Amino acid sequence: MKIRKIVNDPVYGFITIDHPLIFQIVNHPYYQRLRRIKQMALASYVYPGAVHTRLHHSLGAYHLMCMAVQELKLKDVAISQDEELAVKAAILLHDIGHGPYSHALESNVVKKVHHEELSTMIMELMNSKMQGDLSLAIDIFKGQYHKHFLHQLISGQLDMDRLDYLSRDSFFTGVYEGVVGYDRIIKMLTVHKGELMIEEKGVHSVEKFLIARRQMFWQVYLHKTVLGIEKMLVKILERAREIFSMDDEQIRVHGPLDFFLGEFDGIMTKETLELFCCLDDTDIDYAIKKWSRHDDKVLSTLSNNLLERKLFKCVVRAKAFDEEKIAAEKQRIIRETGISSEDAHYFIFTGETSNTLYQPSDDRINIYSKTGEVKDISEVESPLIDRTLSYEVTKNYLCLLRV
Amino acid sequence: MKIRKIVNDPVYGFITIDHPLIFQIVNHPYYQRLRRIKQMALASYVYPGAVHTRLHHSLGAYHLMCMAVQELKLKDVAISQDEELAVKAAILLHDIGHGPYSHALESNVVKKVHHEELSTMIMELMNSKMQGDLSLAIDIFKGQYHKHFLHQLISGQLDMDRLDYLSRDSFFTGVYEGVVGYDRIIKMLTVHKGELMIEEKGVHSVEKFLIARRQMFWQVYLHKTVLGIEKMLVKILERAREIFSMDDEQIRVHGPLDFFLGEFDGIMTKETLELFCCLDDTDIDYAIKKWSRHDDKVLSTLSNNLLERKLFKCVVRAKAFDEEKIAAEKQRIIRETGISSEDAHYFIFTGETSNTLYQPSDDRINIYSKTGEVKDISEVESPLIDRTLSYEVTKNYLCLLRV
Amino acid sequence: MKIRKIVNDPVYGFITIDHPLIFQIVNHPYYQRLRRIKQMALASYVYPGAVHTRLHHSLGAYHLMCMAVQELKLKDVAISQDEELAVKAAILLHDIGHGPYSHALESNVVKKVHHEELSTMIMELMNSKMQGDLSLAIDIFKGQYHKHFLHQLISGQLDMDRLDYLSRDSFFTGVYEGVVGYDRIIKMLTVHKGELMIEEKGVHSVEKFLIARRQMFWQVYLHKTVLGIEKMLVKILERAREIFSMDDEQIRVHGPLDFFLGEFDGIMTKETLELFCCLDDTDIDYAIKKWSRHDDKVLSTLSNNLLERKLFKCVVRAKAFDEEKIAAEKQRIIRETGISSEDAHYFIFTGETSNTLYQPSDDRINIYSKTGEVKDISEVESPLIDRTLSYEVTKNYLCLLRV
Amino acid sequence: MKIRKIVNDPVYGFITIDHPLIFQIVNHPYYQRLRRIKQMALASYVYPGAVHTRLHHSLGAYHLMCMAVQELKLKDVAISQDEELAVKAAILLHDIGHGPYSHALESNVVKKVHHEELSTMIMELMNSKMQGDLSLAIDIFKGQYHKHFLHQLISGQLDMDRLDYLSRDSFFTGVYEGVVGYDRIIKMLTVHKGELMIEEKGVHSVEKFLIARRQMFWQVYLHKTVLGIEKMLVKILERAREIFSMDDEQIRVHGPLDFFLGEFDGIMTKETLELFCCLDDTDIDYAIKKWSRHDDKVLSTLSNNLLERKLFKCVVRAKAFDEEKIAAEKQRIIRETGISSEDAHYFIFTGETSNTLYQPSDDRINIYSKTGEVKDISEVESPLIDRTLSYEVTKNYLCLLRV
Repeated sequence: MKIRKIVNDPVYGFITIDHPLIFQIVNHPYYQRLRRIKQMALASYVYPGAVHTRLHHSLGAYHLMCMAVQELKLKDVAISQDEELAVKAAILLHDIGHGPYSHALESNVVKKVHHEELSTMIMELMNSKMQGDLSLAIDIFKGQYHKHFLHQLISGQLDMDRLDYLSRDSFFTGVYEGVVGYDRIIKMLTVHKGELMIEEKGVHSVEKFLIARRQMFWQVYLHKTVLGIEKMLVKILERAREIFSMDDEQIRVHGPLDFFLGEFDGIMTKETLELFCCLDDTDIDYAIKKWSRHDDKVLSTLSNNLLERKLFKCVVRAKAFDEEKIAAEKQRIIRETGISSEDAHYFIFTGETSNTLYQPSDDRINIYSKTGEVKDISEVESPLIDRTLSYEVTKNYLCLLRV
Repeated sequence: MKIRKIVNDPVYGFITIDHPLIFQIVNHPYYQRLRRIKQMALASYVYPGAVHTRLHHSLGAYHLMCMAVQELKLKDVAISQDEELAVKAAILLHDIGHGPYSHALESNVVKKVHHEELSTMIMELMNSKMQGDLSLAIDIFKGQYHKHFLHQLISGQLDMDRLDYLSRDSFFTGVYEGVVGYDRIIKMLTVHKGELMIEEKGVHSVEKFLIARRQMFWQVYLHKTVLGIEKMLVKILERAREIFSMDDEQIRVHGPLDFFLGEFDGIMTKETLELFCCLDDTDIDYAIKKWSRHDDKVLSTLSNNLLERKLFKCVVRAKAFDEEKIAAEKQRIIRETGISSEDAHYFIFTGETSNTLYQPSDDRINIYSKTGEVKDISEVESPLIDRTLSYEVTKNYLCLLRV
Repeated sequence: MKIRKIVNDPVYGFITIDHPLIFQIVNHPYYQRLRRIKQMALASYVYPGAVHTRLHHSLGAYHLMCMAVQELKLKDVAISQDEELAVKAAILLHDIGHGPYSHALESNVVKKVHHEELSTMIMELMNSKMQGDLSLAIDIFKGQYHKHFLHQLISGQLDMDRLDYLSRDSFFTGVYEGVVGYDRIIKMLTVHKGELMIEEKGVHSVEKFLIARRQMFWQVYLHKTVLGIEKMLVKILERAREIFSMDDEQIRVHGPLDFFLGEFDGIMTKETLELFCCLDDTDIDYAIKKWSRHDDKVLSTLSNNLLERKLFKCVVRAKAFDEEKIAAEKQRIIRETGISSEDAHYFIFTGETSNTLYQPSDDRINIYSKTGEVKDISEVESPLIDRTLSYEVTKNYLCLLRV
Repeated sequence: MKIRKIVNDPVYGFITIDHPLIFQIVNHPYYQRLRRIKQMALASYVYPGAVHTRLHHSLGAYHLMCMAVQELKLKDVAISQDEELAVKAAILLHDIGHGPYSHALESNVVKKVHHEELSTMIMELMNSKMQGDLSLAIDIFKGQYHKHFLHQLISGQLDMDRLDYLSRDSFFTGVYEGVVGYDRIIKMLTVHKGELMIEEKGVHSVEKFLIARRQMFWQVYLHKTVLGIEKMLVKILERAREIFSMDDEQIRVHGPLDFFLGEFDGIMTKETLELFCCLDDTDIDYAIKKWSRHDDKVLSTLSNNLLERKLFKCVVRAKAFDEEKIAAEKQRIIRETGISSEDAHYFIFTGETSNTLYQPSDDRINIYSKTGEVKDISEVESPLIDRTLSYEVTKNYLCLLRV
């Protein structure tokens, strides 16, 4: 009997799951773990609706992949049943390597290992127990399969990951500036010489996509309050790691997090990987509640402030900050909080953040004209793309405790 | 200087906060706690988007209250500035007494105390530290203020609480059957002899509202899979309480939950109330992860199943279940799981669930005609309302472990 | 080369046309004529957004048909390529027989011929010039093809026509009470013994659909102001026909409308049918502007009132109107307007209007349970459907000129 | 008694009318005339949903004005009751001077008179019959009132007209690239030294607004097929005027259009203005149906092609077209259609079209920073605005009959 399940999604209406392998992945505990990792980390401190999960995002990207594959097949692009299944499995699993608070804590929980590496490692771990059913998906994911466009659908300038997260994040935040015409873009996809392309008449939709992404960066992902609250979380983890000791009952949480804060040496074995797969936002949330009662003033202050939404004062601007003024502010904070001078960097700090929208060098958005010509979008008659979008924008930020 | 803050809300666009008292409430740690309590408990196991929070719902209901008050004032209903502020404060705080997983765990975490009682107690606790600024809000909330319609805006057949949760829950689940025309209903509100009424031409919108609510009950709130997963959570708490001991390091979570599982005797003091205000979904989430490794088979099986979304098989129907068949099933489960017969009720159980849409007896929806006549909606020429909606519908459910 | 065109639709996103026959139909002058017939006649006098066209509705219904056919094929319902094309052609053409102001003027422009008959006649006329390419479509449309479910997709309790018009009309009016979950309903379609059915778990969506239809009837289609303005149009045509003469330059419009107001005897020949196919809303719109300057007071008053939106006073209620009171009102109008007593019925009149939501007798909505059982929806455990929806509701209306 | 009416609008939900003067305007025949003028002329040939009217747009702009005024008053900008009413009346009437097919036929129906001039003239005509109730509205409309920001709300870089038409046009076309965050922009409005400004934190919304406008220009307003069909209409009017004679019964339409095609000399008197106020899309629609049967081959061919949607072949590009090739094409068309060489320009022609997004020179978008500083948006740290948007883009088009 055919199994077929439809899932309500407020963004796309309905998502259909209709293959045993897709069911097997969705029901896997490693996949279910993504239910407990928020897609946008702490952005909900500013955008209260932004509490959707990595699981939801992965399902959404899978849905778009179904649409994209159907579209390309209608255009006579050769995609076998095995390839179709593999590319769908791969997109479902593309974020499987994310840890608690994903981007916000990237490399703060698990030192030195990038989440894409972790995704590959976890996919391989799953594959070893699934009789190799994921082998083709893994090849495509790593970019090692000869049909390059399949990889580009997962990871490229216009992949289903980005299309979904922009659509979904703008939906849940209510920032409509980030809405992209995902259906139109998908209808404009085509393949030429094995590379993913956009039909020429889709140029405006691509423009809109690039601009929406830019808007989401500045209005949401790098919003100064979001940035401030996420840096607070980073500082908490930093401090916890600094003072961590298995003898300190106030800091231990009696779960896998203890291992990653203490003993872990940066080398992933099968065992530590399985331990990693037990981590999710819950571990951090619980730790912060516990640490808010810790004797260490730095740790408890920051943890408590996060719980009660007592935000850093946060300034973002183009110019670097005046070092003398920062030093003076630091002295003031030391004086007013009684913190030691070597710990002051937890309560006041500066940094840089940047976003590049579209770098033609690394991965192109190819435009395919009716006449068979291929151009990069930066060569198209479009002043928006041409002159602007590829500029890297770097901004400086300053965060400090309100005392 | 005027403070004024706008919050992006995907449901209504923008929510404006523009009074110091409202700021004070929103920034209060007890209010911020609602950020960590999901509005729809475990419904996200079926509707992945349904992860929005009590904080978000309260803000939304506050927004609708702002609209309603503005509307009534335009219709020359006398509402003083103090009353306006109080009714807004009251709606913001109407859910402040919810505990972890709110309705799903109602009376399972804190035995014998109802969440509306807790709301009042917590509001009074806050009031005592706020120089009585909340006194009028509390009077209105309790229904003790002479202008009854203010209370009805918070708690009545057509209150801002219901208008928001239907709108918000249908938005986040993607179940559009639950969409209500909140703006139209608000525009139809009026007050006559101190009672909240609906103008006659709003009858169809009220019908729609009652039907939307009915649809949400059967399609979402009492959806058999949602019901099954929430009963699993209830069973976990029940078991944890049954075997709880402060000497059992595997069961203790080293937080306020320990107290409510163990020592708590049902009497709320200021101290236990403050302890209650430290609880949120995190405590349960962490406990379940921990308990999934507990030696007690019942506790660990249920906890692990919740984590990995291994659902109960769940049947919902009008007729009661055949007791003999249930008994036979129970024997099978005892046999196959090796569980003791007195613990079998954790793995197989039946119960009743019901919903009454609109009981004209307890609280009326008054319709105010142009000619000045007042009717209950059940007397209006509307076959939908008249004959159907007030029927109580009771259904039986059966949940059992899949083995 | 494959032709493929996508059309932006605000309701569904994109509509795809990808077969030469579909192109041929869409480009046919008879189809393009539907561009000049408003879907909702004069409802835009109350709902200013409701100016969408029959052409747009037909395209929308075609889009839903594409979805429905794809869904049924996924469920292994046998549908050949020819049948698929034919059922799509048939739904595109299902409204081809509508005349100016469609339902509002039904049988007022073209006496004695129903629009479904006209649709068949026009489809046959087109077919005769298209080498029989529409023969199968016509058979399905008439219900003469052995696979009955194909006809039911076009004309039945849950056909694509209704799904589209409810979705579209609620979108353009902004009456969200009429929104139906068209995508969910389509996903619930199945075929059993040649009949179209709904899977059991789709029952709530069908309930919602029936209720949405009911709401649209009372809130929009039979809204008292809409009813009043459309009766005004009917009265204008009635008067024009009464006094029409080819010698009266003030009444002639020098187009096909003249023929249908004057000479036409109710018998459709190929020639008169072709003449009919030249008519659209423009002819009526122009006539009314011209007639607003006519010497006949009845005609010019009504025409001018329509142009300037001077509405009838209109009352709708369950009880019949008191005949004596009507007679007295009529005398008053005669006195105040100076109209003759035999013409007074143009300025004051009563009538009945009714809507039956779901009559189980004529065409059933079959529910198909997992166990293979088939029930009519009225037998399903649903108090909404069961007791209420099949009641016919008749209301009386009274319209009179404001003087 | 207070009159208060709410109108359903699919774009904003509800529009409230609550002042006798606003009622008087809305009920005026000149305003009702806008019901018969499509907002987007012939764009519905490409975007079938785009059939909304000038009346609907004016109501929408009025609604945004209500929001904007309320917002500014909350920010303590001094706006008296009279000014509030006047600025609302003015926005309602801002398009009252549009003729049939508005922009598409601008200066083709009424030679030499611009629609803004006509708006002023018609407002003054109405004012003379309304005891001067519109005097302040007219002053504001003309920019002669000392509070300049009131004029800027009606006509400026960020006026309510533009906010509405972008929102509305993108809604009805389904081109979501044109959606603007109108509510956010309105919440960011402020007034400084009598000038309308945007608060600094609204910069991204303004960016989005400018880009949405740009996208709508290239994707909708100047879409090559829309451009082609509107040029066809222009050519029809041009030809009709060229061969117009009151003796030609085939060309006369027996209405005010005859006067503007024939006798009118470019000088507007009270009488000709009143005649102009009888014109709407109906007159053109009827004429085209009639002219499609005219003996003049140019007129009948073009008219028939418009009716049956037989489009020009249309090319749009940056470079000018090669004159020799155009000449050769023209010869081919002359040969194949048998048209005379002096009439060939009706069947093949070229032209230029352009759009400038934001010209800092003529009207600035002022950004008001928290520190009280005022900058033009082009000076703000925004690479999108800074470098790109002010470029004027000119494109060349070529239209020719398909033969």
